[in-house]
Amino acid sequence: MSSLDALRARLATVYDLNKAASVLEWDQETYMPDGATEARAHQLTTLRSLSHEHFTDDETGALLERAEVATQGLEAQDPARALVRVAQRDYDRATKLPARLVAEFATATARAKHAWQAARADDDYAQFAPHLERVIALSVEKSDALGATVPEARYDILLDEYEPGMTAAEVAREFAELREGLVPLVEAIADAPHVDDAFLHAPFDEATQWAFGLEVAQAFGYDLAHGRQDRSAHPFSTTLAIDDVRITTRIDPDYFPSGFFGTLHETGHALYERGVSPSLARSPLASGTSLGMHESQSRLWENQVGRSRPFWQHWYPKLQDRFPAQLRAVPVDAYYRAINRVGPSFIRVEADEVTYNLHVMLRFEIERALIDGSLSVADVPAAWNAAMKDYLGVTPPTDREGCLQDIHWSIGLVGYFPTYTLGTLMSAQLFEAAQRDLGDLAAAFAEGTYLPLREWLRDQIHQHGRVYTATELLRHVCGTGLDAAPWLKYARAKYALIYDLAL
Amino acid sequence: MSSLDALRARLATVYDLNKAASVLEWDQETYMPDGATEARAHQLTTLRSLSHEHFTDDETGALLERAEVATQGLEAQDPARALVRVAQRDYDRATKLPARLVAEFATATARAKHAWQAARADDDYAQFAPHLERVIALSVEKSDALGATVPEARYDILLDEYEPGMTAAEVAREFAELREGLVPLVEAIADAPHVDDAFLHAPFDEATQWAFGLEVAQAFGYDLAHGRQDRSAHPFSTTLAIDDVRITTRIDPDYFPSGFFGTLHETGHALYERGVSPSLARSPLASGTSLGMHESQSRLWENQVGRSRPFWQHWYPKLQDRFPAQLRAVPVDAYYRAINRVGPSFIRVEADEVTYNLHVMLRFEIERALIDGSLSVADVPAAWNAAMKDYLGVTPPTDREGCLQDIHWSIGLVGYFPTYTLGTLMSAQLFEAAQRDLGDLAAAFAEGTYLPLREWLRDQIHQHGRVYTATELLRHVCGTGLDAAPWLKYARAKYALIYDLAL
Repeated sequence: MSSLDALRARLATVYDLNKAASVLEWDQETYMPDGATEARAHQLTTLRSLSHEHFTDDETGALLERAEVATQGLEAQDPARALVRVAQRDYDRATKLPARLVAEFATATARAKHAWQAARADDDYAQFAPHLERVIALSVEKSDALGATVPEARYDILLDEYEPGMTAAEVAREFAELREGLVPLVEAIADAPHVDDAFLHAPFDEATQWAFGLEVAQAFGYDLAHGRQDRSAHPFSTTLAIDDVRITTRIDPDYFPSGFFGTLHETGHALYERGVSPSLARSPLASGTSLGMHESQSRLWENQVGRSRPFWQHWYPKLQDRFPAQLRAVPVDAYYRAINRVGPSFIRVEADEVTYNLHVMLRFEIERALIDGSLSVADVPAAWNAAMKDYLGVTPPTDREGCLQDIHWSIGLVGYFPTYTLGTLMSAQLFEAAQRDLGDLAAAFAEGTYLPLREWLRDQIHQHGRVYTATELLRHVCGTGLDAAPWLKYARAKYALIYDLAL
Repeated sequence: MSSLDALRARLATVYDLNKAASVLEWDQETYMPDGATEARAHQLTTLRSLSHEHFTDDETGALLERAEVATQGLEAQDPARALVRVAQRDYDRATKLPARLVAEFATATARAKHAWQAARADDDYAQFAPHLERVIALSVEKSDALGATVPEARYDILLDEYEPGMTAAEVAREFAELREGLVPLVEAIADAPHVDDAFLHAPFDEATQWAFGLEVAQAFGYDLAHGRQDRSAHPFSTTLAIDDVRITTRIDPDYFPSGFFGTLHETGHALYERGVSPSLARSPLASGTSLGMHESQSRLWENQVGRSRPFWQHWYPKLQDRFPAQLRAVPVDAYYRAINRVGPSFIRVEADEVTYNLHVMLRFEIERALIDGSLSVADVPAAWNAAMKDYLGVTPPTDREGCLQDIHWSIGLVGYFPTYTLGTLMSAQLFEAAQRDLGDLAAAFAEGTYLPLREWLRDQIHQHGRVYTATELLRHVCGTGLDAAPWLKYARAKYALIYDLAL
């Protein structure tokens, strides 16, 4: 067996162990009886430990060295060369952290998560602060262990875990441009006449909602021979194999958009994973290339497609047929405006397409300042509320509705938040490029046709898995790296029409 | 860490890997999309290989040796001593087979299964015969590798895999007694007036069947905090942890008893596994002690309870309420006779409670003769048909309805068939002992009360897991080893009443 084949076999074992864990997690979130929680935790720990041991074994390192030599003559984008590069990257990240730090991080985040839950329940930031202090200190240690030679590099290294190759400076630059365009847009919308969406807050039969969402997902190209839709407390998409990518949905019986757009969002994630080339199966290349690029796919199908006017030209009459009592009297334009209603709010996960990015931006700024030491943990609530006032014009009445609302920091996710808005920006860059290549897609959407878009995305993005970074893909496909301009252009045009703004 | 703790940790890892595989198999049979078949096969192979490697590693052998010394002072039934004994037994079976033989067996059975499917479809035994020849030859090799020093010991060793400690001679002795009692009973029933069950062959709403079966399962004590019922092509029970034991059911929309008694049967298996003491969790002791004992639990709840007259005194009015059109005009006694209708048939899995055992018996006799060489593969169809004529008075018109009907031999299961009837015999032994201890259970059943029986079974059988063999349990609980007399007594009494026989 060649060194490359031996490496592939080893990585396939690791992949299978990870995916077995994903099956157990999917089951845990969907069908597992409550009484099995502790036993399942043991099983998952066993699978994850074996996967980690197998992957970080010296034998993997030796195979990587030999495979690196064997593939030196190949071009960078050759899948074999990419396999060695990406596996080496993962191996370095997995082996560079001392066991002591990994253990301390696990303990600290377990405690911090617990403290965060209590602090949020009691609306008492002081309970959480010492734990956040510890998570930030350990995150700094982690970035140093992973190779940050100067303090300025620390946040980059944390971000790199979720968005390989992206730098904080690049993110900050595009976010600044975004903020400059967004704040006035949000202000203009706030001054415009209110959009009525009261009719969406009404009972909508759950089974009908369920079937309608799944019908649209299938029209997008989500294939039930390789996927399924189940119920869970929090919607998610999970890859159990590139031939088995499942989504879950949570239906709100009294508000239609919640479940429906959740389904489209998860479908976008799932189509990405389903589009990976079968030649990459059971390897570390067989997944989306970054969280930002992943989020670009979910946002694109949810927003650029699912919240567009042409989309509803096709689907609204069908939706009215399903919910005549609720929607018969509502014209499509009123419906379209209602599902695109914009307004400042305190809670990120409930925010609309426009203000969402301001929520993300302030988290990025705060966590970056925590890592570089320019902001102390004690000052987080004040910084949070000031940014909310600046960006959205509102001040959270409590920390529970402010800096205590997200679980991320408590479980050690630092460098993760910006990927949500990176996804938003990339989605518009890609959608613009798609229309450059395919022509205006409005007519296709108005007919319920998505095949050209999906095939284009598969061709340009999905099939490559992790062979290219997100930035490399953007450069190939759009001609530039990360760029806030296309999304701003999209948002201005869309919301100028909805709110009758003179921008 | 003591050697015993180290052994426990190692066995817990193996257990978790096996149970993770069980989760993947459960998913495969219930919810997995069709297109995931190949990927799932890879994942299962990876989990099973890792489990096997981990278990058969020399380190396990070394730990077993040290733990054996450390537990020598303990009594045989001490769980620590039992753990070492049972794990050593499993280790020996797993390590004694040369890798070459394991591989040949895997290849031969994969081919034999394929050939069996084709042979059955074509009703052409000749296609299957050479493959059966090979499976028998490899089974003989296997028994020799596992320590058969004389040919007479071979079948014992194959049987021992499924029914530890039981011998072919013991089985043959009780089966002979059973046959002597059964054949005249079946003949007497055949001469008695026909029982009408036409009203059971009618449309029964699937969801109502489903809910009714689950209601009875819960009344038996099956707890949905630690289990669930799902649909699958073939009903089964599976243990994903002792806190998570699931059943599946297949509903026949046009015949009520099929799904219902299937549910009770699987519930019996599940109650056994759920009853294992939590102190044995994540160890090789945490499961039923043998296939026969397992089948005794499923048969007991399905037949001694679920097909009894007192059981239906409680449930029949409820069933009539659910299915008034089908059952309103049918008195409970007519219903009771119908669900206990006896008649010779060709297909084992469709056989009634009485004739089922004759089907099993002839398979035991044939496979035992194949292993000891007194029957050639070529003569199997003739031997089969002769036994069918002798025992049941009927001759299968085709081999498809005869010796080609079961998958077992094709996949290498030799020594497995008798456990079905061992379960039947044990169920009656245990039920008799339960009534000795608890008094007549008819009154409790007539009130829909099962707690005393279930607690008794848990106390006497379930909690011990694999600490005792089936024979040891029978001796403790019933005072004798395997004994056909209690079941014969039960069957004669029950069917004399149903068929108005003078026995």
